[in-house]
Amino acid sequence: MASTVDSSSNKSSLLMLREKVKKLGRVPASWAAYAWSIGREDQRRAIHALKVGLALTLVSLLYILEPLFKGLGKNAMWAVMTVVVVLEFTAGATICKGLNRGFGTVVAASLAFIIELVAVKSGKVFRGFFVASSVFLIGFAATYLRFFPSIKKSYDYGVVIFLLTFNLITVSSFRQENVLPLARDRLSTIAIGCAICLFMSLLVLPNWSGEDLHSCTVRKFEGLAKSVEGCVNEYFRDQEKDDNIFDNKASRDSIHIGYRAVLESKSNDETLAHYASWEPRHSTQCYSYPWQKYVKLGSVLRHFAYTVAALHGCLESEIQTPTSVRSLFRNPCTRVAREVTKVLQELADSIRNHHRCAPDVLSDHLHEALQDLNSAIRSQPRLFLGSKHGSVNSRMLIELTSGKHTASRTALPSFKTDTASLLERKITKGDQPSERNERSTLGRTLSKIAITSLEFSEALPFAAFASLLVEMVVRLELVIEEVKELERAANFKEFTGHDHLTIDLTCKEEKRNNNGVPGSHTVSSAAE
Amino acid sequence: MASTVDSSSNKSSLLMLREKVKKLGRVPASWAAYAWSIGREDQRRAIHALKVGLALTLVSLLYILEPLFKGLGKNAMWAVMTVVVVLEFTAGATICKGLNRGFGTVVAASLAFIIELVAVKSGKVFRGFFVASSVFLIGFAATYLRFFPSIKKSYDYGVVIFLLTFNLITVSSFRQENVLPLARDRLSTIAIGCAICLFMSLLVLPNWSGEDLHSCTVRKFEGLAKSVEGCVNEYFRDQEKDDNIFDNKASRDSIHIGYRAVLESKSNDETLAHYASWEPRHSTQCYSYPWQKYVKLGSVLRHFAYTVAALHGCLESEIQTPTSVRSLFRNPCTRVAREVTKVLQELADSIRNHHRCAPDVLSDHLHEALQDLNSAIRSQPRLFLGSKHGSVNSRMLIELTSGKHTASRTALPSFKTDTASLLERKITKGDQPSERNERSTLGRTLSKIAITSLEFSEALPFAAFASLLVEMVVRLELVIEEVKELERAANFKEFTGHDHLTIDLTCKEEKRNNNGVPGSHTVSSAAE
Repeated sequence: MASTVDSSSNKSSLLMLREKVKKLGRVPASWAAYAWSIGREDQRRAIHALKVGLALTLVSLLYILEPLFKGLGKNAMWAVMTVVVVLEFTAGATICKGLNRGFGTVVAASLAFIIELVAVKSGKVFRGFFVASSVFLIGFAATYLRFFPSIKKSYDYGVVIFLLTFNLITVSSFRQENVLPLARDRLSTIAIGCAICLFMSLLVLPNWSGEDLHSCTVRKFEGLAKSVEGCVNEYFRDQEKDDNIFDNKASRDSIHIGYRAVLESKSNDETLAHYASWEPRHSTQCYSYPWQKYVKLGSVLRHFAYTVAALHGCLESEIQTPTSVRSLFRNPCTRVAREVTKVLQELADSIRNHHRCAPDVLSDHLHEALQDLNSAIRSQPRLFLGSKHGSVNSRMLIELTSGKHTASRTALPSFKTDTASLLERKITKGDQPSERNERSTLGRTLSKIAITSLEFSEALPFAAFASLLVEMVVRLELVIEEVKELERAANFKEFTGHDHLTIDLTCKEEKRNNNGVPGSHTVSSAAE
Repeated sequence: MASTVDSSSNKSSLLMLREKVKKLGRVPASWAAYAWSIGREDQRRAIHALKVGLALTLVSLLYILEPLFKGLGKNAMWAVMTVVVVLEFTAGATICKGLNRGFGTVVAASLAFIIELVAVKSGKVFRGFFVASSVFLIGFAATYLRFFPSIKKSYDYGVVIFLLTFNLITVSSFRQENVLPLARDRLSTIAIGCAICLFMSLLVLPNWSGEDLHSCTVRKFEGLAKSVEGCVNEYFRDQEKDDNIFDNKASRDSIHIGYRAVLESKSNDETLAHYASWEPRHSTQCYSYPWQKYVKLGSVLRHFAYTVAALHGCLESEIQTPTSVRSLFRNPCTRVAREVTKVLQELADSIRNHHRCAPDVLSDHLHEALQDLNSAIRSQPRLFLGSKHGSVNSRMLIELTSGKHTASRTALPSFKTDTASLLERKITKGDQPSERNERSTLGRTLSKIAITSLEFSEALPFAAFASLLVEMVVRLELVIEEVKELERAANFKEFTGHDHLTIDLTCKEEKRNNNGVPGSHTVSSAAE
């Protein structure tokens, strides 16, 4: 009995050992899988690595091949160093670093040469003192210069290389009589290195910072569209029907990926725009690129994303509007969100294709959706005040929730909704707060507050949600303005019309005849 | 007549010329003033520049002084290069770069030595082929490795130096028989350079990344406090009384400086925390620093700042609540904001002084302020519904606006306010949305919506504002939790009580006796 136990324990320990060996064997495999995934995520990475390997091999030939080595000698090392340091992922970054390195070296060599001229006729001791003090002074000045924001942004690397070269040449000159050949060799080898880098970076499968910035901007629009859609869907999701927590969490996570990418894009945008400004024109599609406009668009998008973040905050808020209240406004809110999403998507498409967006991209549909939301909210008190019978209320409530609130829309032409007038007001920009104050008399104001402020805890969050939705539309207009400015500056192709224009026109015409919606564009505006 | 005109024109052109010369003369002066301002902004910059100058002079002595030069020879150049490249502004960055450079060189030298061992016995042609292919392979592998996020974050510079050294040694070995001295000299000179850098960086007036991160975090709290205060003051500012546009703009600008600094702090925080993690303990105040907790606190603060940004959005929104409506809620809102500001300021102070914050930092005052806000909002409909006479309304309105809404507070004990219960609910965390839905019957809900949803355009923005204020308090709690976690992890000094405790206690006691506010802490909790 004991022996069987013993053998079984032996067996189990053997199995464990085998498992461990297997696991250890799997470690390199998992590393390889990880490395593979890095490359699969962005294939340009592997290509760039190949390019660097190739450039290094090319530059090594300067040393390996006899005729080339005879010309340059040991200074070929500088070429190798240049390739390692200068060849960056994108063409713009390589050009920026290469030029910085080149200029830094030239300026440093000139300065060192001047100092050499002064020092050459003096004695050994004085010369040593002179070299040391010039190294100190230039070291101090160059380092201090690196703190200047404008220098730091564009020429930081150049200043480092300047300091490096200056010190190398000045200090070398102390031991070597003629420093000119040293400077010349260093310059020529750095030039060779830079040439190889530029060749590899500009001509062999180039990666453009500008294209990165462009596609990054498109992705931002798409991410925001997804976030807005996700937020509103999540807010009005029937929590009792599908309360799958994991699914819920995943969808919530996907919401903040979109807007957080926008909120955290600042430094990346600026870097890309800076490198892109060094890049030559590389595409026939774009005439001249106003990269700084992309940065500005990014900041306007961030301004928009703050609202999306706040909207997302409503989802995560501790005070929640009951589902029954929410469901009352599901249709108009979802419609507004859908229209906003559609506009964002359209903007993304137009930027992606270097096309101008439609002049009526902020469509009448959105205005209508806003009016619906407004009238849905406005229609509630009238339901309540009009009749005190609960039965009538609940019947009308059911009508509302089942999406049959077209009745409220037919009554629309009689008053100009506030959101529509707000949008118009924004365009005319002739309003003053004091005007509005005068219009609203004290008594009216009081009643408004009195009515509105009831039930702080449950209605307030929904009011915030609705207000943020409206605010989002207002900010969307700013985004559209900025996109249009970018399109003008970047000389995008003219808007030639979209496929569903005819359908739009007919349905617009119909609606205009029916109720004369304010703010709808005429047909001619589509060809602006 | 003509001559006088001529002479006067001559005079004026002379004057213009003189002006231009003066202006040109002023250019260097303005540059100097600019350079001076850069240094005045942060004096450590000038000190750092002096340190770099000194380090470079020291390392130049290796070349200038005869005995030192004899030992190292021309390889002293590597020491100069090391100092230029490695000596960074903060100690952590210098250590990180120095170690990366050291390790990169050691690994590269070892690898190059192994390859040398393989290649040494082969013929010239095979050797050239072997060297070129190893350069290609290692170049590819190292560059690909730089795309790995973990490598990129901490060891990017090390990989570059590895590649540089490997290429230098391998390629040199092709022309030079014995590569060992080359590798040894490079290592020793780099070690000398690193030693000088570390000496300068750690022992001569060091700048610590950790301290930067610490004070940066404190500044964030202070900036947020200013933003919140500014937002609320701006929102309730009497626009008719002081409509100085410039003053207005300046105060609005100062608002967004505070929260924007927090929103854009991510990459800076991460860099500082990364460098700080390389720094040795340098202060007796802190036992061991959990730098990543600072990063986490930064992300929670960003979460808080989203709300501040949204609050600021309310100021800039196109739909504005009339001043008369706002002024009704000025006192409770300002009070909530003041309390939030106070808490933020207290947290800032406690972090600055490495003290734990008071356990009751989220004080009863804040709870009371929230309840005031709630009851101010709630009291309005009762005013309205209680009597239909306009005269009574306006009288009570005047009472309210003049800050005499203490009457509403006396009625407070009769019901538990929703914000207070919300805060309690957060602690117990046992609520489900379905519970609330069951409680609110359809009819009640309908009336609520009906009442609340009237006057979409003017009341909605205020509701959003109030809701954001409440949300801010909820998020403030998360911030406090994170601060407490940081304080525990960083082993801050125990909380020993604050100066105004006695005053607080008396006024708390008084209030508790008067109206029995729920959620107020007992005295013992202050000594937790």
